Amino acid sequence: MRAVDPGIFLDEMRQRQPLVHNITNYVVMNFTANILLAAGAAPVMAHAVEEAAEMAGLASALVLNIGTLSPPWIEAMKMAGRRAAGRIPIVLDPVGAGATAFRTETARQLLDELPVTVLRGNASEIMACTGMTAGTRGVDSSAAVSDARLAAEELAVQHRLVVAVTGATDIVTDGRTTIQVSNGHSMMGRVTGTGCAATALVAAFCAASSSTLAATAAALAYFGVAGERAAAVSAGPGSFQVALLDQLHRLSAVDLDGQVRLGTVNAGDTENA
Amino acid sequence: MRAVDPGIFLDEMRQRQPLVHNITNYVVMNFTANILLAAGAAPVMAHAVEEAAEMAGLASALVLNIGTLSPPWIEAMKMAGRRAAGRIPIVLDPVGAGATAFRTETARQLLDELPVTVLRGNASEIMACTGMTAGTRGVDSSAAVSDARLAAEELAVQHRLVVAVTGATDIVTDGRTTIQVSNGHSMMGRVTGTGCAATALVAAFCAASSSTLAATAAALAYFGVAGERAAAVSAGPGSFQVALLDQLHRLSAVDLDGQVRLGTVNAGDTENA
Amino acid sequence: MRAVDPGIFLDEMRQRQPLVHNITNYVVMNFTANILLAAGAAPVMAHAVEEAAEMAGLASALVLNIGTLSPPWIEAMKMAGRRAAGRIPIVLDPVGAGATAFRTETARQLLDELPVTVLRGNASEIMACTGMTAGTRGVDSSAAVSDARLAAEELAVQHRLVVAVTGATDIVTDGRTTIQVSNGHSMMGRVTGTGCAATALVAAFCAASSSTLAATAAALAYFGVAGERAAAVSAGPGSFQVALLDQLHRLSAVDLDGQVRLGTVNAGDTENA
Repeated sequence: MRAVDPGIFLDEMRQRQPLVHNITNYVVMNFTANILLAAGAAPVMAHAVEEAAEMAGLASALVLNIGTLSPPWIEAMKMAGRRAAGRIPIVLDPVGAGATAFRTETARQLLDELPVTVLRGNASEIMACTGMTAGTRGVDSSAAVSDARLAAEELAVQHRLVVAVTGATDIVTDGRTTIQVSNGHSMMGRVTGTGCAATALVAAFCAASSSTLAATAAALAYFGVAGERAAAVSAGPGSFQVALLDQLHRLSAVDLDGQVRLGTVNAGDTENA
Repeated sequence: MRAVDPGIFLDEMRQRQPLVHNITNYVVMNFTANILLAAGAAPVMAHAVEEAAEMAGLASALVLNIGTLSPPWIEAMKMAGRRAAGRIPIVLDPVGAGATAFRTETARQLLDELPVTVLRGNASEIMACTGMTAGTRGVDSSAAVSDARLAAEELAVQHRLVVAVTGATDIVTDGRTTIQVSNGHSMMGRVTGTGCAATALVAAFCAASSSTLAATAAALAYFGVAGERAAAVSAGPGSFQVALLDQLHRLSAVDLDGQVRLGTVNAGDTENA
Repeated sequence: MRAVDPGIFLDEMRQRQPLVHNITNYVVMNFTANILLAAGAAPVMAHAVEEAAEMAGLASALVLNIGTLSPPWIEAMKMAGRRAAGRIPIVLDPVGAGATAFRTETARQLLDELPVTVLRGNASEIMACTGMTAGTRGVDSSAAVSDARLAAEELAVQHRLVVAVTGATDIVTDGRTTIQVSNGHSMMGRVTGTGCAATALVAAFCAASSSTLAATAAALAYFGVAGERAAAVSAGPGSFQVALLDQLHRLSAVDLDGQVRLGTVNAGDTENA
């Protein structure tokens, strides 16, 4: 069953060109900004407590990403999150949750204190957000996406948000409906920041749609299809990264809808998921 | 009328290989360093108050860029700027001025406290430096370059510096003479940090010439011509970014002079500008 | 004489996929992570004092890189280093030692306080670590590798570590045996962070081998051969950087062994070195 036509969401996002405010880690700042620009959104990065809330007030979506975290950044995330609350989508990326206590506790604290709209992580990170230990290996998952499905559905219900778990196959759930996105390519694991880039695209898509569940799945499908197309013309992770930006820029709504592989399963129904 | 032969400035810069000290934002640090290396200059980044002045003392130009700003960086910028003052060019990039009060005030404070040599920004940022509100959208301009011409000329006279406003067509002014640079390509807006890269190139060119107005225009022309050449061989923003670095490296003075589109107008004369 | 067959070390590293914890500078974080992923290792970046030691406790190697240094990072480096001590290799990159007192003193302090396993720098940086002044120009060496050989051998004996000096020809020494690595390409000097990338690869190789001297030489040979192959298919520094990542990913142990140029000289014997 086709759950979502992601092309509509892509066109809507491109038309809106949403300004996405990112408080994100040093490793991926440049790549995240270029991913958003290639897709058709407008990125801005600002992390100082002196301006984080004001910048969030100008934006159409807020990304909070806890990689390369330090205490002043957490304070800025909370200030920006409070300004964003109820006005624009807040997308949280719990990079490395489960690896260190500092990351795990920060991720859970942000979930508790802010009305997060979408939580996007790999399986280990999502499981760590529920208190399960899933052996995050640095910032890479050591669990499969299917292992994290129950944790994702539980978090979605508990915090009233959408949870996206990305990996070989992605799942997106609001606790009632779970969508499976089967696009993407293994080469994405050989470029740093592809998970963080997916998070930023989710924010851009959610900025342009009130259907958070479907917009999140659409963003992941768009990213996955662009990844497949990039892999087809690449000789390794360097040329893949370049081609990924080109494909995000070039991919049309029609071509996206023609290549997408989405399915819906009911929460609790383990078939296909 | 041909105002400047930029090839001479390019050759001079490459021969000098100036060391450019950048106190710049996290998003563009890597790209800025690679732009300077591709052009033939030598980049160094150092922002700690423990060494900012000492590093500026070793350099041939200083770049102050206020993206991803926080208070300790402002202090370092002032320390480095005081060491640079009167000895090497100081080039200020007021990233996001007009978007938040913190950015606007910092940009104006640096202009007031330091003998800035060149101010390079987009139209919204330059207008914000004069106290005009021009609706900066994150770090992107929502005004046209021509809207900022009077602001640029006013700032140039008031602070005795050269102001460069970049966009579809760039203008460079010392308040008396205004040069128009009509090179460049729209794809430059789809890669993060191209404005910041232009600023760094202006610093490198000014390090190798005492004709600040002409050197600034030459740097922007060089960057614009490389962008046109890169766009001609690119399939999207990923391959454009790669080709831009290649073209900056390969472009000769002769080819630059053959492709440049420069014009001079008197300040106050609105023809063409 | 063939000192080392680097292919064995490459295969061993790829099989182990070591998690490399990097406390490194802002300029190269993204590139370093991508270099490690392309090679087959797993990168993680974490610099907060709240988690640096815990992350080092999860890792198989620790990189300490002092570019874009500030005091809180030094504290985190020491905490991570103490946790790593005697358990996993610690690789120190003294970026910019010799340029400012802050960098020089920090490099020497880390060497004194931590049981560093490998020190990797350019000639000026290595000379600065012994107290010699060698006129570091920003972060670029103004001395030749051969000028730094005695300093490298002295440091190796004094601190009981392996020292790698990289440049046109690299040398690797434990103070008794000095290996010369003659691979690489001048284009590597036109991309920022290639030295830092070499350091990260040394850490990954040393994580997978107890033969530190040979593993260090193997990592540099692997990087140099990939650089030669990348240069052969590049049009400038942009496409070179892309091709370098591709080649690191694609290069097989057999092809590496077929292209490597390694030689051994005794310490004190100046022939060839």
